[in-house]
Amino acid sequence: MTTSHGTGPLRLGIAGLGTVGAGVIKIIQRRADLLAARTGREIQVVAISARNRDKDRGVRLSGYDWEDDPIALARRDDIDLFVELMGGSDGPAKVATETAIATGKDVVTANKAMLALHGQALATAAEEAGVALRFEAAVAGGIPVVKALTEGLAGNEVQRVMGVMNGTCNYILTRMESAGLPYDEVFEEANALGYLEADPTLDVGGIDAGHKLSLLSSIAFGTQVDFPAVELEGIQRIEFADIEQARDMGYRIKLLGVTQMTGRGLEQRMSPCLVPADSPLGQLEGGTNMVVLEGDAVGQIVMRGAGAGEGPTASAVLSDILDIARGIRVSTFGQPASSLQKPKPAKAAAPAAFYLRMQLQDKPGALARVATALGEAGVSINRMRQYSHHAEGTAPVLFVTHKCPRAALDAALSGMSRTGVVEGEPVAIRIEEV
Amino acid sequence: MTTSHGTGPLRLGIAGLGTVGAGVIKIIQRRADLLAARTGREIQVVAISARNRDKDRGVRLSGYDWEDDPIALARRDDIDLFVELMGGSDGPAKVATETAIATGKDVVTANKAMLALHGQALATAAEEAGVALRFEAAVAGGIPVVKALTEGLAGNEVQRVMGVMNGTCNYILTRMESAGLPYDEVFEEANALGYLEADPTLDVGGIDAGHKLSLLSSIAFGTQVDFPAVELEGIQRIEFADIEQARDMGYRIKLLGVTQMTGRGLEQRMSPCLVPADSPLGQLEGGTNMVVLEGDAVGQIVMRGAGAGEGPTASAVLSDILDIARGIRVSTFGQPASSLQKPKPAKAAAPAAFYLRMQLQDKPGALARVATALGEAGVSINRMRQYSHHAEGTAPVLFVTHKCPRAALDAALSGMSRTGVVEGEPVAIRIEEV
Repeated sequence: MTTSHGTGPLRLGIAGLGTVGAGVIKIIQRRADLLAARTGREIQVVAISARNRDKDRGVRLSGYDWEDDPIALARRDDIDLFVELMGGSDGPAKVATETAIATGKDVVTANKAMLALHGQALATAAEEAGVALRFEAAVAGGIPVVKALTEGLAGNEVQRVMGVMNGTCNYILTRMESAGLPYDEVFEEANALGYLEADPTLDVGGIDAGHKLSLLSSIAFGTQVDFPAVELEGIQRIEFADIEQARDMGYRIKLLGVTQMTGRGLEQRMSPCLVPADSPLGQLEGGTNMVVLEGDAVGQIVMRGAGAGEGPTASAVLSDILDIARGIRVSTFGQPASSLQKPKPAKAAAPAAFYLRMQLQDKPGALARVATALGEAGVSINRMRQYSHHAEGTAPVLFVTHKCPRAALDAALSGMSRTGVVEGEPVAIRIEEV
Repeated sequence: MTTSHGTGPLRLGIAGLGTVGAGVIKIIQRRADLLAARTGREIQVVAISARNRDKDRGVRLSGYDWEDDPIALARRDDIDLFVELMGGSDGPAKVATETAIATGKDVVTANKAMLALHGQALATAAEEAGVALRFEAAVAGGIPVVKALTEGLAGNEVQRVMGVMNGTCNYILTRMESAGLPYDEVFEEANALGYLEADPTLDVGGIDAGHKLSLLSSIAFGTQVDFPAVELEGIQRIEFADIEQARDMGYRIKLLGVTQMTGRGLEQRMSPCLVPADSPLGQLEGGTNMVVLEGDAVGQIVMRGAGAGEGPTASAVLSDILDIARGIRVSTFGQPASSLQKPKPAKAAAPAAFYLRMQLQDKPGALARVATALGEAGVSINRMRQYSHHAEGTAPVLFVTHKCPRAALDAALSGMSRTGVVEGEPVAIRIEEV
């Protein structure tokens, strides 16, 4: 079938020599004996490609053929495996991947955006060509979660997968909490530290994490990747007050991805959520990632580790490379692409308790009016707090509702806005049962 | 090579129909379509064996051939894969496993004791016969840690592996803490609840967890399993006072396994340790297991889940079965058995800080004498506490030492016993940096 079986060397072409690409090459150079002992084969870099040939990447590259064009690299007949580390959902990464597949190479990629948008087509192409297409590094960095879900939990009907999978957002939220700083200030800090993507909306808007979630959904439920159906909400509207109030009530705020198959269809959400402060998700600090896998047999498995960075991401890329060297050839999304069902997206998320914060005007009967709006929408109140009035004549008011459908909450919110006593937009954050 | 390749059904013979065996059969019956979708093959139980044919196991068994003798089951030529769930390091489990291997079957087992004692011989036999021998369920129940370490982290030089892998011990320790009860009472409780092995020393003496640790060592470091070299210490001497004092200082006590390759050789320990209360290991409650994997590239990966029970253990057994159905054939310990090195055991554990608790007699100069004994052995004191004297004329005294070799601590302990002011045996517990 493909040339990557057997016991000769596994010959790699690597496209993209950023942090991760250089990291992969460093490991292959430093740990050649270890990798050969584990796979029974030499892992051999044959050719490489990147935008800039002359940049110092802290690793010896002189022994490898250079290709200016990643597509030419993908086409070479002296490589068995094409390693795509360029990034970008379309453009050269996609064409090079397609070329590698069409010319009979296995492919390993870290490109979540490409797979979130074109995963079904690429997996189908790979399957038809009889090659492997693997992406451990695309989800949660060094945490071997794709393998755990696809293989480790293969005997389970998966019930729910949750994850904190954008380290930058978790850094921003935990830093706001620990330093008592407003969102904008920490955002600027993160930017100065180089933590943010060129388009920061990818991070703080939840898009990057949403890409990852859509890939996990596919594996978990045997469905085609459906990123457009992910309900996305970023962390941009979270204020320090929310973090503080959440903490007072025993919660922390995380940008949490949740995917679950329900009677109403596939529910995929990436949004800020309150989670219990003493849960593993609630205890997560800084840039660390966490994925929670729930299966009918195994119960809950929690995996925690670095979600980004040279070493962790290179470790995940190597895991796929070494699998292929060992002859491990699992379908891209855990079962043949042709057998993946087109998911029916759930029209609405499962009911939940919500945290609500708003500024109430200092008028008689103001609190009664918003409480009435909640009641009329069928939303009942679990906890309520009102604080002293600010100088501006408004007072912060907090509600924690009982479980209700999001639609009921939205009805309550529009009812509130009609009362004329709520200043600005209320903040509503889902409380997730983890 | 073996008959388990290909796309026909994968035919199983299952020996041992306790909770786990019955659980495996339930999943195969209930999730037949899901398993076939994931592996492309039917998973078919052909024949079964157990001690008692007539017992009601809550699962339909009438469709399967019955064998009174597991060895006869292992020898059948209409099975591809022998699933060993009988337990016991020697006896029928071992003979049946050897028979299955010798007659060309792949083997999946949950038997940590058998592998801890005979893993090298069995892996070698499997390799020579060209069959697979896999054991995900033998370590940390439902947590797919064998796969994570062998495959997910295959690109790493592993630095350290730690684990809380005996749920019963963790249950006892957390129950002592939450209920303020002495060890003996909680031990009896656990016994009444059926949590303990027939020989409870396997649990509370750390032997069961030590078996698991020795298997992880082999995978982590490419060494032959060396269970006899595991330094074992159980939880029997832990008192509520230790748990309470540890908590006061920001620690919790766990039966913690640690394996690391050092300049002095392979260090394998399974013993009670103090770990920071706010670390993932410190936060672990009840019967849950946790494994911490540390690799040079990936950093620290933490995995948490149920360490025992029907569903979780069956999930792990299924993971191996489905791997084999998919054609995934990794060496038992991650690399060919013939290439595993014989480990040189480290003569002494790495230096550590220690927690020391003793009963000091109410005599002038008593504290000075034990402090002197510490000093003379080169052990310096980080923290010290003395409490009010008991009625019996002794007072509890606590020390936390700075890092020191265990030998220095032992010298200090014998120095103390010579002072004549220490009542009974001091308790010394290692403080592990996690």
